[in-house]
Amino acid sequence: MKLLIKNVNILTGEDGIINNGFLGIDEDKITYISNIAPGGEQFKDAEIIDGKDGIAMPGLVNAHTHCAMTLLRNFANDMPLEKWLFENIIPREGELTDEDIYKGTLLGIAEMIKSGTTTFADMYLHMDQVARAVTETGIRANLSRGPITSGVRGNGLTVDTNAYMDYKKRWDNTADGRIKVSMEIHSVYLFDEVSIREAAQLAKSTDSRIQIHLSETTTELNTSIEKYGVKPIQAAERFGVFDVPVIAAHCVHLDDEEIKLLKKYNVNPVHNPSSNLKLGSGVARIPDMLKAGLNVCLGTDGAASNNNVDMMEEMHIAALLHKGVNRDPLCVSAEEVLKIATVNGAKALGFEDVGVLKEGMKADLIIIDTNKVHLRPLYNPQAAVIYSAQGSDVDTVIVNGKILMKGRELLTIDEEKLLNSFR
Amino acid sequence: MKLLIKNVNILTGEDGIINNGFLGIDEDKITYISNIAPGGEQFKDAEIIDGKDGIAMPGLVNAHTHCAMTLLRNFANDMPLEKWLFENIIPREGELTDEDIYKGTLLGIAEMIKSGTTTFADMYLHMDQVARAVTETGIRANLSRGPITSGVRGNGLTVDTNAYMDYKKRWDNTADGRIKVSMEIHSVYLFDEVSIREAAQLAKSTDSRIQIHLSETTTELNTSIEKYGVKPIQAAERFGVFDVPVIAAHCVHLDDEEIKLLKKYNVNPVHNPSSNLKLGSGVARIPDMLKAGLNVCLGTDGAASNNNVDMMEEMHIAALLHKGVNRDPLCVSAEEVLKIATVNGAKALGFEDVGVLKEGMKADLIIIDTNKVHLRPLYNPQAAVIYSAQGSDVDTVIVNGKILMKGRELLTIDEEKLLNSFR
Repeated sequence: MKLLIKNVNILTGEDGIINNGFLGIDEDKITYISNIAPGGEQFKDAEIIDGKDGIAMPGLVNAHTHCAMTLLRNFANDMPLEKWLFENIIPREGELTDEDIYKGTLLGIAEMIKSGTTTFADMYLHMDQVARAVTETGIRANLSRGPITSGVRGNGLTVDTNAYMDYKKRWDNTADGRIKVSMEIHSVYLFDEVSIREAAQLAKSTDSRIQIHLSETTTELNTSIEKYGVKPIQAAERFGVFDVPVIAAHCVHLDDEEIKLLKKYNVNPVHNPSSNLKLGSGVARIPDMLKAGLNVCLGTDGAASNNNVDMMEEMHIAALLHKGVNRDPLCVSAEEVLKIATVNGAKALGFEDVGVLKEGMKADLIIIDTNKVHLRPLYNPQAAVIYSAQGSDVDTVIVNGKILMKGRELLTIDEEKLLNSFR
Repeated sequence: MKLLIKNVNILTGEDGIINNGFLGIDEDKITYISNIAPGGEQFKDAEIIDGKDGIAMPGLVNAHTHCAMTLLRNFANDMPLEKWLFENIIPREGELTDEDIYKGTLLGIAEMIKSGTTTFADMYLHMDQVARAVTETGIRANLSRGPITSGVRGNGLTVDTNAYMDYKKRWDNTADGRIKVSMEIHSVYLFDEVSIREAAQLAKSTDSRIQIHLSETTTELNTSIEKYGVKPIQAAERFGVFDVPVIAAHCVHLDDEEIKLLKKYNVNPVHNPSSNLKLGSGVARIPDMLKAGLNVCLGTDGAASNNNVDMMEEMHIAALLHKGVNRDPLCVSAEEVLKIATVNGAKALGFEDVGVLKEGMKADLIIIDTNKVHLRPLYNPQAAVIYSAQGSDVDTVIVNGKILMKGRELLTIDEEKLLNSFR
């Protein structure tokens, strides 16, 4: 199928802005991008999208979430992380069924598409159901499966190699390449050295990326020092976690040495400002991480601690927060936030041909409707997207060349049915 | 005219939540509120609003903005406050005409109504045009007029008593009581002791509230100490500013003594988190101000430093920010933010019968449409409004008993014409 978007302002994510441009898609790829209309027969039979008043830009990459935690949205609020997690969230999670996870993932994917996310990294339970929802809805995802299980040998931890290998075999590079499988190692605080070492070894031998939570709270920091004699970052390094590419959520409490260590191993830190603020975890040193050359990414975390999975809002908060906390209006610019929320995330998740709009890249993009009072006047489209736009301004979403939303109507999800199922 | 909203969840702002309730309006007032349908003839001929899937709550009060700065939205970004203000914003402002201000104010009011604001405090230029736009659009506002002018006597500052008195006479308590006039004293840094003293005296003798910027940046702090030997709060006190009710924007850099001083005079501090973050000004000590019993309010500041005037977003950021910065997930709860953004603002602006939904109060309210993927499941309506909802979820806006927006359609502003005028 061919698609041609006409008369649209294009934020390429790389070469600035193309005003009143044309973007052509053939099957799953961008094959034309210019401020000049394509000539000849190239897009003769293409479906045309009128991009008037639109800003086309790379789809957003939510580099850390627990998608089906939409099920627990506003279930527990205004309490400390440990109480929130261990007394409210985890007990409720224990009751969740396959069908719950499928439904909750659909709800999260619907919300993500409606707010401009085209790719996400997921770490949760019943991961076959997540893969099922991703396959059906047309979104792109890196799905992590945790091999470490508890209670199998007495009260100890064990690494279920087969469970992980089976999941990877079943889903990796399926759905026209939209799904990649990685390994979940939840954190260094939840497991022990032996199990983490074994899992990291399995990741290495299966050429897997790892998704992990690292240095989210001061409690985690202190627990790690008590348990392992070192901070979580050093513990992860020591246990071999960094021997493969790592997507490291949070990274809130880092000293200079730890930032250097992340850079040494090219670990991809994921900034989750809303969740870190809401749970009282703190504010990550994003300006310092950027200065150190780290591939900083952006994520919403789960809807239970955010309480949404809206990356437009997450970009907005990331762009404001560090300026204020560091009293430096020049740090973390709109341009940097755009990269953090798109191409950096795509790279971290292993989608090298996603995150920038240019010929040859996958056709993962969104169109923002600027025909809104809060987006006028439109002096600077990039600043408007970061500082003024809302998730609800996303009009059209395309992933892998396929239209998932047009005129805010979801085309791969029955939104009314979904909403009714959550009454 | 009578109005009856049926089957709506009501966040009264005072007594918690009324599920599936009824809210009746007669002319400009709420005359019925209950979980039982009104009997008899009381609302026989009333216009009915179906509140299904809706949350009715007090309209939001934007306690500090410069409404027509929408004209400068995304005009200048990512630079220090002084450069932003003195090199970019003020020169551009010098060129603005009456008609520009009228149009810019309409644009800001349209955005505010569409994101749930029913009352705002304004401080800007050509204030007759602001009053004109408020009168026409049906919103409620406290409009400040600055009597201090420069350059009249040589390069000195002078207080134009007549200009202020005329404005007050022309607009105070007009538009069915929707407009109140207050005095702008921009700041202690822009003027000198003599002119501020004279203006404050005029405010006192005319029974006027004062709108002022106080302690926004460390530069302001240092300038005040250099110029007056004391911090801005102390300077304002010394010059008589606190002898009348004061709406004090920002209040970012306060020590314990200054917080006590604000409390002593019942000064109303307005928190502007987005603007303070974006300009690198810092983070106000809101938890400490709340503990001290101050009537903390919330504002967006102008769209040039935010870059929107969306109070739903401002509530969200206020509810997250302080938890993270103070590493305390219990501080500044959803409930507190709701008060800050409604009844506290109304009180500060002198609208004593606004900000809470109960019988006898002015009918200023909004209805949030929860039929959205990001608002399901709906465990806790109050948390959902603060943590998950967006400005675009506001479906209906009522001010002074009059419907200003229904089904997201503005009824007092020609939105299409307005949008076209900003192409």
